[in-house]
Amino acid sequence: MARVFNFGAGPAALPVEVLEEAQRELLDFKGSGMSIMEHSHRGKEYDAVHGEAIQNIRTLLALSDDYTVLFIQGGASMQFAMVPMNLLGAGQSADYVNSGAWADKAIKEAKLFGKVNVIANTGKDIPTRMPKNSDLQFTPDAAYVHITSNETIAGSQWKDFPRTAAPLVADMSSDILSRPFDAGQFGLIYAGAQKNLGPSGMALVVMRRDLLDRAPATIPTMLKYKTHSEENSLYNTPPTFAIYVLMLVTRWILKMGPQTLYKQNAEKAGRIYHALDASAFYKATAVKEFRSDMNITFRLPTEALEEQFIKEASKLGMKGLKGHRSVGGVRASIYNAFPMAGVDALVAFMKEFEKKNG
Amino acid sequence: MARVFNFGAGPAALPVEVLEEAQRELLDFKGSGMSIMEHSHRGKEYDAVHGEAIQNIRTLLALSDDYTVLFIQGGASMQFAMVPMNLLGAGQSADYVNSGAWADKAIKEAKLFGKVNVIANTGKDIPTRMPKNSDLQFTPDAAYVHITSNETIAGSQWKDFPRTAAPLVADMSSDILSRPFDAGQFGLIYAGAQKNLGPSGMALVVMRRDLLDRAPATIPTMLKYKTHSEENSLYNTPPTFAIYVLMLVTRWILKMGPQTLYKQNAEKAGRIYHALDASAFYKATAVKEFRSDMNITFRLPTEALEEQFIKEASKLGMKGLKGHRSVGGVRASIYNAFPMAGVDALVAFMKEFEKKNG
Repeated sequence: MARVFNFGAGPAALPVEVLEEAQRELLDFKGSGMSIMEHSHRGKEYDAVHGEAIQNIRTLLALSDDYTVLFIQGGASMQFAMVPMNLLGAGQSADYVNSGAWADKAIKEAKLFGKVNVIANTGKDIPTRMPKNSDLQFTPDAAYVHITSNETIAGSQWKDFPRTAAPLVADMSSDILSRPFDAGQFGLIYAGAQKNLGPSGMALVVMRRDLLDRAPATIPTMLKYKTHSEENSLYNTPPTFAIYVLMLVTRWILKMGPQTLYKQNAEKAGRIYHALDASAFYKATAVKEFRSDMNITFRLPTEALEEQFIKEASKLGMKGLKGHRSVGGVRASIYNAFPMAGVDALVAFMKEFEKKNG
Repeated sequence: MARVFNFGAGPAALPVEVLEEAQRELLDFKGSGMSIMEHSHRGKEYDAVHGEAIQNIRTLLALSDDYTVLFIQGGASMQFAMVPMNLLGAGQSADYVNSGAWADKAIKEAKLFGKVNVIANTGKDIPTRMPKNSDLQFTPDAAYVHITSNETIAGSQWKDFPRTAAPLVADMSSDILSRPFDAGQFGLIYAGAQKNLGPSGMALVVMRRDLLDRAPATIPTMLKYKTHSEENSLYNTPPTFAIYVLMLVTRWILKMGPQTLYKQNAEKAGRIYHALDASAFYKATAVKEFRSDMNITFRLPTEALEEQFIKEASKLGMKGLKGHRSVGGVRASIYNAFPMAGVDALVAFMKEFEKKNG
């Protein structure tokens, strides 16, 4: 079987070893005579999977007992609503940083539930970038501060997270577990699973337990973090297969060693940015100090050349290089599971393409 | 590989052919060089899967263009909230039938959003049962009438759906696509996927389009049916793998022929009920006219015998026969994918067990 290089922004490439293990035991999980998909979420087989998934996240993020780990259906889009519904009390306001399309969506949703102060707006900046921490003016008594750690569409990434008095909330959908950071600095972290964690269909939520009680009694049971925390993400039937794959993916990271993975991620991005900087033909989209190590966005001299580039790359087995439909250009998403060989193939192709068309 | 007979109530047995196909193409979907889990939800490969899943549902339920078919994350528990949030306008009330544990959950959730009239309550009746249609007194001007077509825990099933002036809303989580019925009689049908449709992690929602506009503007974007309908369940990244398996399951039903499946379901249930009725040792839990064809609940003379029965059956490869923890007893869940051979094995074991212990 010829696996292609999947540069897609999400759902994205998964580790081959993980897919192979899932494939091997798809009809018979650990000799139980049924698929993990067919197991009760209240049985001992699934319970071990669920427990390991949570423990792996706790280990990888070095979480203290002050934090709870939740799996919640609906992806990051549901979190855009759940965060303000749970944390934004009556009469309170929240600080949001608008750093691009995803932050903008979070802001629009939060406005349904309370007062939002947009404390920085780099959302339309070209070249794309994050705000500088020194430019952030926090609102006294804000219920929380919301940032987007990595803008998947813009290709920009927060490198040094701000220190905030109010709980810091981050959408880390597109760079969770891709680099070292201090989770203890955050009040709440959420991440749609379909980039660095597993299949689509849920979000990982890591939150400080003292924030659980902020939610008003009147919000829907399923949208209350406390429901999921009290029931260990088993209030209702969870997406068991997605959690199973997340467990395999996090086990894969632990086996490789997270530091090794983080170094590899930096090296992967570095090779592509190096190729971009070495050429006048390609132009990286993001300001250098805010370049994403996960989503590398760049332009070619013309849109016609971009189209040709993407088409030729696809023929060579490099898929999903088209930039988001809202911005165009080229985007190479190179999440944790994306292999170095794919990076090298892209870099070689870039040189070749420039030689022919430059 | 020895597959067991999985009598679990959900997540439940899936068709072996479906699991085998998913297994075969898990690393390489249709020669694309990647797993369906890794495909973009905006790409042509996934698009074909998504489209076929929706079309299969339309065909199997014989839906007119008046209906929209949606895939929404969160399972039936999320629907308990979404139904009143979308359909219960300010100052309105809704009629709910309390027929057991699941209806009760739906009622509790609806009360967060408006006035609920419980127009019948058989929830605590032993033997378990549904109300008779002739006993239902609908509230004039109710926003909708909510029923639970099959109570998974109680083992009772609505056989003849009521005719209502207000839109009829049904939780069909545990018997969707298991028998013929007229979908045109309903305003909205929802079903958690993990029994008759596929893996856990979403609900199928079928609703009349004219009800889409009832939702107030202030509810969360992800909880508005209109969001999902306008975007063909692609507003955000859907649970692509779960929808893929649902597509395979519905394709499997179409291949076999739904009428064949429905007859087989009745025959499967009939064989177990026949064994129950032929014995004084076993006692079916539900009133005869409301017996579920999906979840067959029964008691033995003592709890000790029930425990022994479940244990011995498990050793023989008949798994998941324990009744729900809230009611005890024995429960054989025999959804669409559960094979006739498993039914016959259970019936034979019941006779054997009675002979030894009766």
